[in-house]
Amino acid sequence: MTLNIVLIEPEIPNNTGNIGRLALASGSNLHLVKPFGFEITDKRLKRAGLDYWQHLNVYYYENIEEFFSKNKNAKMVFLSSHGTKDYWDISFEDNMFLVFGKESVGLPKAIIEEQVDKLFKIPIYSDQVRSLNLANAVSIITYEALRNIR
Amino acid sequence: MTLNIVLIEPEIPNNTGNIGRLALASGSNLHLVKPFGFEITDKRLKRAGLDYWQHLNVYYYENIEEFFSKNKNAKMVFLSSHGTKDYWDISFEDNMFLVFGKESVGLPKAIIEEQVDKLFKIPIYSDQVRSLNLANAVSIITYEALRNIR
Repeated sequence: MTLNIVLIEPEIPNNTGNIGRLALASGSNLHLVKPFGFEITDKRLKRAGLDYWQHLNVYYYENIEEFFSKNKNAKMVFLSSHGTKDYWDISFEDNMFLVFGKESVGLPKAIIEEQVDKLFKIPIYSDQVRSLNLANAVSIITYEALRNIR
Repeated sequence: MTLNIVLIEPEIPNNTGNIGRLALASGSNLHLVKPFGFEITDKRLKRAGLDYWQHLNVYYYENIEEFFSKNKNAKMVFLSSHGTKDYWDISFEDNMFLVFGKESVGLPKAIIEEQVDKLFKIPIYSDQVRSLNLANAVSIITYEALRNIR
């Protein structure tokens, strides 16, 4: 029972650090697609308890094209505030890839347009906030996936 | 359909900020029990997009005793790595209080001992991490509650 958490061009090191901890805690692989908004050797990523980083299964990609070409046959879902379906309706599967965009703008427009059938959102019950913190969103989806496939 | 997120003596302002955003997004009330590890007027809490803080329903308590005495009849569950039951087994209800301890040590020992039947954990699938980031843990539980009671 394994999941794959994918961050496309993450910007904020604290978020990637917290998501690394979540990936390890949930038994998931972590896929990081460059460019990042920080150096992976950045002090901010190394500290904050990142002594566990060495135990993580992390895959790095130079860009989005490389990520898709190396994971051609993977089952993927894409999380976006542009999704029309709630994440509760995802048919989770073992080995699924859960794909998240960057903090500031989410997934690239090209992915949103191409993957419209696989685009899911976390419902938001307020007009005052547009989205959740990235690490929080990844946590919600990952543990909902675990609940389904455990 | 409302939930109550309770943070007992939170230490890290970024976490409380992210949990405020989550509370608003999920339509939940936020209950903050002092002492905090920061000033609530702290710049770190004010920025990071805390322009939404004014829209939140926040309740402040001077200490744990005041929190319990003011919410005597509330249905509560307590989240702790010391829980023996998984959070998937919580019977969520409208207006439930979801109670979380501080980042460094979790809930006070007295609560853990008194509330042992209402103590639930988020399962962790690694020996390398003991717990999740607090805001991530709150996110997982809050949206699982919403999924159940929506």
